[in-house]
Amino acid sequence: MLQNILLRRLSATNRLKVHLDLFGDFKHNKFHINSVFNKSNKDDFVEIKFQGKSLRFPNVWLRDNCQCEQCFHQSAKSRILDLSKFNVDVQLKTVVQDETTVQITWDDNHSSKYGLHWLKFRSFTPEDQLKYTNTLYQPVKKLWHGEDFQKICSKHDYNKIVNCDDALHNWLQDLATYGVVLIQNTPHSNIALDGIIERVGFIKRTHYGVKFVVENVANTSNVAYLSSNLQMHVDLPYYEYCPGVNMLHCLVQTVSEGGENLLADCHYTSCYMKEHHPEEYKLLTETDVEWSDVGVEHGNEFFKLYRSPVICLDRHGAVKRINFSVPQRGSHFPGSIETVKPWYEAHGLFYELNQKFAAKFKTKAGDILVFDNIRLLHGRNAYEDKSGNVRKLLGAYVDWDEIYSRLRCLKAKLYPVEGI
Amino acid sequence: MLQNILLRRLSATNRLKVHLDLFGDFKHNKFHINSVFNKSNKDDFVEIKFQGKSLRFPNVWLRDNCQCEQCFHQSAKSRILDLSKFNVDVQLKTVVQDETTVQITWDDNHSSKYGLHWLKFRSFTPEDQLKYTNTLYQPVKKLWHGEDFQKICSKHDYNKIVNCDDALHNWLQDLATYGVVLIQNTPHSNIALDGIIERVGFIKRTHYGVKFVVENVANTSNVAYLSSNLQMHVDLPYYEYCPGVNMLHCLVQTVSEGGENLLADCHYTSCYMKEHHPEEYKLLTETDVEWSDVGVEHGNEFFKLYRSPVICLDRHGAVKRINFSVPQRGSHFPGSIETVKPWYEAHGLFYELNQKFAAKFKTKAGDILVFDNIRLLHGRNAYEDKSGNVRKLLGAYVDWDEIYSRLRCLKAKLYPVEGI
Repeated sequence: MLQNILLRRLSATNRLKVHLDLFGDFKHNKFHINSVFNKSNKDDFVEIKFQGKSLRFPNVWLRDNCQCEQCFHQSAKSRILDLSKFNVDVQLKTVVQDETTVQITWDDNHSSKYGLHWLKFRSFTPEDQLKYTNTLYQPVKKLWHGEDFQKICSKHDYNKIVNCDDALHNWLQDLATYGVVLIQNTPHSNIALDGIIERVGFIKRTHYGVKFVVENVANTSNVAYLSSNLQMHVDLPYYEYCPGVNMLHCLVQTVSEGGENLLADCHYTSCYMKEHHPEEYKLLTETDVEWSDVGVEHGNEFFKLYRSPVICLDRHGAVKRINFSVPQRGSHFPGSIETVKPWYEAHGLFYELNQKFAAKFKTKAGDILVFDNIRLLHGRNAYEDKSGNVRKLLGAYVDWDEIYSRLRCLKAKLYPVEGI
Repeated sequence: MLQNILLRRLSATNRLKVHLDLFGDFKHNKFHINSVFNKSNKDDFVEIKFQGKSLRFPNVWLRDNCQCEQCFHQSAKSRILDLSKFNVDVQLKTVVQDETTVQITWDDNHSSKYGLHWLKFRSFTPEDQLKYTNTLYQPVKKLWHGEDFQKICSKHDYNKIVNCDDALHNWLQDLATYGVVLIQNTPHSNIALDGIIERVGFIKRTHYGVKFVVENVANTSNVAYLSSNLQMHVDLPYYEYCPGVNMLHCLVQTVSEGGENLLADCHYTSCYMKEHHPEEYKLLTETDVEWSDVGVEHGNEFFKLYRSPVICLDRHGAVKRINFSVPQRGSHFPGSIETVKPWYEAHGLFYELNQKFAAKFKTKAGDILVFDNIRLLHGRNAYEDKSGNVRKLLGAYVDWDEIYSRLRCLKAKLYPVEGI
């Protein structure tokens, strides 16, 4: 059934007053399409009633997202309309619908066709936007206290991740949600990490190399390569593009006491501070720190500096990144001298709380500890490095860009949504 | 000459009132060291008069930056003091100085020694901090209009950059300052780019590979791989870690008209909009856009999404990143429906202004066009791809983390500063 609705011109303003009472049957769901002219001349939009809900779509947005071959490149899946010729004030001329699509002819006679599910998936209602955000865009983070670590740290099998998309999805979903997961039964091999990273994307290289070995090293360029107590920190905060996820494959673990991992969820700590210590929280979100690493690795000199607060908020006030590292906090303090002491107090409190909220456990050979490097602090208790009691980890970083990308590919494949 | 000053306890508050009138001769410059107790109990600091200027250093900062072997690891060049035992209220006990150093004994009897030049380099005065920021931290950006392109786009020789640190420094300094430079006399080779990137650091890999070829491709996954008009854009805005610098090695250029490069400095455009179109500027800095790229490359699926405004400001209100791409702006609009039309108007104005302010020129075989991908828009006029009139570029990305790092290494080597 096709209906062609000729729109009536209502006034000398040369604008359209449109009220379409299309009533159809779309997979047993009743829907309406209304195109409504708003007097403010700001919000010309088409309105669809779908499954009892009213959904509005702005004309300008619809025209911009025309899916025809002239406006949208089919193999590149990209908009190709010429922006210099685009009319922001584009108006509807006719609207045609059938059971699954809406077809619009514009006042320049261009014609656009949209699937109803395609439109529904791009709904502008805050509830629909939030649902889309929390499922496809990025999973919601769930915060945790160290006491709950055994409950939230899920265990995944190396071979299942390598061979099965479901296992790959579940691993990445848990990682995005809790910021930490454990992969078990990893082959004792220097390339085992690669096998699992290739399932996601590729390694993030840094000046420490593509992969890195964590073991006791004399005359090291990095304090992580010692056997002494390694205070909780994030890796490489002096990178503007700080590695998103840290993967530490335990090849050899100490037999004796010591060498335990410490992990704290700084989103939990930040939330706690915001509530109980708002002034200190504010200082840590507003005071720039100069993170620093200067040295030579594999014969290449580096001189990294990056300024950023300990708790970095996005424009909406949500925590987006944590920077913390005693050894890699530079000696230049870029703020005013008056903020120095209060900042040190807040910084000390942040560390104290993270110690209080931290989980303690010990990985064993064959484990890959995977954690969000811009969310968690991680550290290691001291151990005695000697013959018969060594510890060796192989590490690599992967960025969130690649992880979220893989997660979306998997969701689209495993949990397909109409209109995606 | 060493002076050991015993500090007097002044009150029952168990705090120190210190006023040291050390007067010495430091490389013919007179200086004083004063340790002053501020009644607010906020700013305990040591004061140095050096070259006629008074410099203050907070006690807590001095203690935190003690350079002794217990507190600072010499080969890792990193702070190693134990934060859980750190006393933010640390007090001075004695101060000793000679011609080049200040030695402090703290109330816990720990002793710290600092070079005077080391201290001067870490001065807390806003003027000294600004100087340090604009030289070592990051060079100041100079904005430009397309009319001035020939003046600001410096030309560099491939072999000189490969062989000479001065040439390498000058290239990177100009790139950081203006956001665009041209490298000439590049060998006609698929690995010529590598030779120059190895001088800086390493390539940023993306889902399009390590290097990428820009030429006309049928059934492409990216509209850049077509011969049609390529509207001005930034590459990969759907990456949270958007490639910092784009290097395009021109291997073959079209003989005919067409294929010209377009470049616009969006920092200039942003500055212009802020002054002349403040409402549109505000909309572009506050409205999230969902940048998007979905497809398959080299057999690997990707589903990139990243939300960020067109003009991204840092916490201080300075422009830090530009996102703009007609094909890679997703169809999901994450903001409120009311902002849609005003945002489209602002977005259209931004593009119109960038077109107005853009430079137009054409690289030739042997050129590497290097530009700041998160500052400039770049585009290409259409050309007719046919036998005898092809165009082939080889591209690679390098991140600013690595570029600034190399630039600092070079500055430290070529223009050494005492106390660094």
